[in-house]
Amino acid sequence: MTARIDNETDLIQTYLAPLAAGAPGAFGLQDDAALISPEPGTDIVISTDPVRAGVHFLESHRAGDIAWKALAVNISDLAAKGAKPLAYTMALAFPDAPERAWMQSFADGLRAAQTEFGCHLIGGDTDRTSGPLSVSITAFGSVPQGRMVQRTTAKAGDHIFVTGTLGDAALGLALHRDPAFLSRELSSGNRAFLSGRYLRPSPRVALAPLLLSCASASLDVSDGLIKDLGRLAAAAKAGVAIRFAGLPLSPPARHMISAAPQFTERIVAGGDDYEILFAVPPGRLETMRGIALAIPVQITEIGRLEAGGGVTLLDASGQAMHLGGGGYDHFSRVAR
Amino acid sequence: MTARIDNETDLIQTYLAPLAAGAPGAFGLQDDAALISPEPGTDIVISTDPVRAGVHFLESHRAGDIAWKALAVNISDLAAKGAKPLAYTMALAFPDAPERAWMQSFADGLRAAQTEFGCHLIGGDTDRTSGPLSVSITAFGSVPQGRMVQRTTAKAGDHIFVTGTLGDAALGLALHRDPAFLSRELSSGNRAFLSGRYLRPSPRVALAPLLLSCASASLDVSDGLIKDLGRLAAAAKAGVAIRFAGLPLSPPARHMISAAPQFTERIVAGGDDYEILFAVPPGRLETMRGIALAIPVQITEIGRLEAGGGVTLLDASGQAMHLGGGGYDHFSRVAR
Repeated sequence: MTARIDNETDLIQTYLAPLAAGAPGAFGLQDDAALISPEPGTDIVISTDPVRAGVHFLESHRAGDIAWKALAVNISDLAAKGAKPLAYTMALAFPDAPERAWMQSFADGLRAAQTEFGCHLIGGDTDRTSGPLSVSITAFGSVPQGRMVQRTTAKAGDHIFVTGTLGDAALGLALHRDPAFLSRELSSGNRAFLSGRYLRPSPRVALAPLLLSCASASLDVSDGLIKDLGRLAAAAKAGVAIRFAGLPLSPPARHMISAAPQFTERIVAGGDDYEILFAVPPGRLETMRGIALAIPVQITEIGRLEAGGGVTLLDASGQAMHLGGGGYDHFSRVAR
Repeated sequence: MTARIDNETDLIQTYLAPLAAGAPGAFGLQDDAALISPEPGTDIVISTDPVRAGVHFLESHRAGDIAWKALAVNISDLAAKGAKPLAYTMALAFPDAPERAWMQSFADGLRAAQTEFGCHLIGGDTDRTSGPLSVSITAFGSVPQGRMVQRTTAKAGDHIFVTGTLGDAALGLALHRDPAFLSRELSSGNRAFLSGRYLRPSPRVALAPLLLSCASASLDVSDGLIKDLGRLAAAAKAGVAIRFAGLPLSPPARHMISAAPQFTERIVAGGDDYEILFAVPPGRLETMRGIALAIPVQITEIGRLEAGGGVTLLDASGQAMHLGGGGYDHFSRVAR
């Protein structure tokens, strides 16, 4: 027999209130509103990025993974702004009364994520929907007053960096859709790595001090490098040429695209990376390199903004590579 | 021919960015995050209350009314906490690419509401869903530090007040579901009044100064007086007896329930009032009455918290009235 939760108070008090324990502005999730008491001299940075079954995750995903990712995509936006995570609110809409085991796994995933990212649940809402499961998180972080790192403030001449490795999540999604595919080519360890990068992204919250002191602009890579780099460059009224061979790729990703070159484009256009793409003016490069040594996040320079426009991707012989897509667009496609 | 918007940038820049004009933390809706710069000595109060077609509104509602209500339900939560509205973020999920005329009407409704309530759009997200239209607003307000009026802090002996009139919205919904019903009994002016109270609730933001200086506890009436009063009383470990004849009813509501007494229960259990229910300790009564004279909101005392528990509703002869329901619960029912 499957136990389902048919009472909102039970759902909140049994599964969600423990995630708010110790957060003073949460009022035990018993009020209609939540509270943030900002430290003097700080601004509050806000990200709101709902996820929905069929668009941002698959119904078949485990509840703990859904919860982790729902929070991670918001914390990633905060991290890209140089913000320190503080708290989040969450609105859940269920197509059916959730099963207890599912809800416990969801709460466990959320606890693991909020512990990792350093924030607490402080409020929200639960109700029912005739549509798919949706998890709408709004996350709050703090930055020193007036110091939020914007997306649109880079300039021609700035150097472009990206954290971590690119394309792992997009390749992980491809494996999820067709688990048998490439099973001969890819070791189980490599498959687990790519799948993990898709299901449980790691927002780069450790990068905040570096961004705050050195970055002229920053955003997270959620729709693919080409599309997000295009946004950063366009706002700077600049262009950029990137060598594919110079992009940071994980060993499993290199392995997969050498076995199946048709997946190469996903490295730069697949989305879901949740790495941070940022610009550094020449005068801040040396300081940035010093801070980078103290931060446990891999950082790779991938190009430099120049007069002109557009993003060009170059192959090993210096020729422009043709891309069919151009990044993932949640608005024009309902399901991948 | 119906023009549809199939491009997210077009949707944001044409219809939403104008709602963010002049708000410094909105960055023209071109960043992934929004910013609030809190005034020194203030806390930020947060409400997050998504609305969804089929649960909180009907597909047949006009876009401008949907927009108004989506914002109003959140501002009402802020108002009940004594907060001054500052800003909001909004995540929209569309089942189909929206029509331009629909989107214009939606933006117009939002503009009217944010002007009325005194806040701006500062960020959000748009995407597509396989489910019904959903509008997820998170609203932000400010209160003097440490002064947010909570729900759970009333005490036995406190006097209970409610703003405005009760039941209008629930009766308005009944008329929406069956427009022909009662058309002989109710004038078109009365029908328009009740319908307007359902479609375009007026959050009581003007009440903030009174709540901050005199209320021991407060919440908005969104699930019906009985249910919400039950929450306030239960948290105070107290009970309360209310005379039905002493409740504030509008003339159209009195007219409708005298013509159709079967709707009487909706006055106290129908929900969607968005009035404010608050408790005042005896020692603050005189101050409260003074402030009330300066505030353009009707305030009615409806009872007093006593030792014991539960909410009792009394008829004209002092007998307890029996209620079938007990307030509206979005969690256990998908559509009304």
